[in-house]
Amino acid sequence: MKVLVIGGNGRVGSLLVDKLAAQYQVVAGSRSPKPEKNLDNIEHSHIDLLSDIDTIAKSMKDVDVVYFVSGSRGKNLLQIDLHGAIKSMQAAEKVGVKRYIMLSSIFALQPERWKESFLSDLTDYNIAKHYADLYLTTQTQLDYTILQPGALKEEQGTGKIETNVVNPGSNSIANVVDTLVAILENHSTIGKVILMHDGDTPIIEALHQIK
Amino acid sequence: MKVLVIGGNGRVGSLLVDKLAAQYQVVAGSRSPKPEKNLDNIEHSHIDLLSDIDTIAKSMKDVDVVYFVSGSRGKNLLQIDLHGAIKSMQAAEKVGVKRYIMLSSIFALQPERWKESFLSDLTDYNIAKHYADLYLTTQTQLDYTILQPGALKEEQGTGKIETNVVNPGSNSIANVVDTLVAILENHSTIGKVILMHDGDTPIIEALHQIK
Repeated sequence: MKVLVIGGNGRVGSLLVDKLAAQYQVVAGSRSPKPEKNLDNIEHSHIDLLSDIDTIAKSMKDVDVVYFVSGSRGKNLLQIDLHGAIKSMQAAEKVGVKRYIMLSSIFALQPERWKESFLSDLTDYNIAKHYADLYLTTQTQLDYTILQPGALKEEQGTGKIETNVVNPGSNSIANVVDTLVAILENHSTIGKVILMHDGDTPIIEALHQIK
Repeated sequence: MKVLVIGGNGRVGSLLVDKLAAQYQVVAGSRSPKPEKNLDNIEHSHIDLLSDIDTIAKSMKDVDVVYFVSGSRGKNLLQIDLHGAIKSMQAAEKVGVKRYIMLSSIFALQPERWKESFLSDLTDYNIAKHYADLYLTTQTQLDYTILQPGALKEEQGTGKIETNVVNPGSNSIANVVDTLVAILENHSTIGKVILMHDGDTPIIEALHQIK
């Protein structure tokens, strides 16, 4: 199986590429690929989310799964986090990739909660993620899963999380990455929006508990 | 009939309010209403598109038609032109207003044409208008009409335009305003996206030609 990670150079993406490479053929897609990391089962592909759908689609040749873990960190929300994300969905549909796993943000689909906690400073970001998630769930036929963690932290992973969460909580990047990997292996996550934070439940079990 | 103009203080909105007031009861909604313009059939309402749906809905009491002609002029595209617009749609649906007339921009629903002509400098704006128009056409049950002129100019109106246009062309603000008024009177425009520029066809006739 061949897996494309869009945003493969980011702090989530680079770890995700490494973890996925233990089991799959991985394409690390980013605007500035790092060719020095060329391993047998990791290839690099130039993906510029500012380019058009057909150009983005070229990186999806023979790909079975697309992960979207890219982001502009607030620098180009309209063109990258919103429209760039949606162009990658349209590219996936165009070339016939069915499985699409999106890293989103907690409450991205619940605007009524955007004034809570750390989210109150992130309204522009939430709007971009909101309409990307909304497009994925309503305007595509993709087999999507949307993962919505709260704040990401550079902490050691514990392998334990909670799903179905009702309040924001912090997330080690390693736990988020392990959850993204586990989502691919659990078909029951297809069509689901998963709210998560670090917790006490082993990741696989937490995914089985999704409502 | 009572008509709400969101963005009633703008360069399109203020003229639209005056023209509509010749026939209808008008509510001019804006963040900073101009009470000096209080006439018998023009009332002013404070509308802040940064506020929540219920707050926006308060300005729609007894309203039959909503016009959206607001815009941040590039200053707050995510919160005003995109999310603010969509909150106004959701507010209209919540209070039972059916008719919603949106002033958009040429090719807002055709990203493949955003590199043409003056649009190449407006990608962020186009993205915001795109997802607002897309939401209106796919996610609401509103009786919408979307008007998509090209560049707006402060010129005298001629009362003559073209619809079904395939290339961008300039538009006098007065012609756009007269077209917005005529849309309300022509029920055949419901559910339509109208691309226009100044031309040689009387407005009513041009609206009857819409494909």
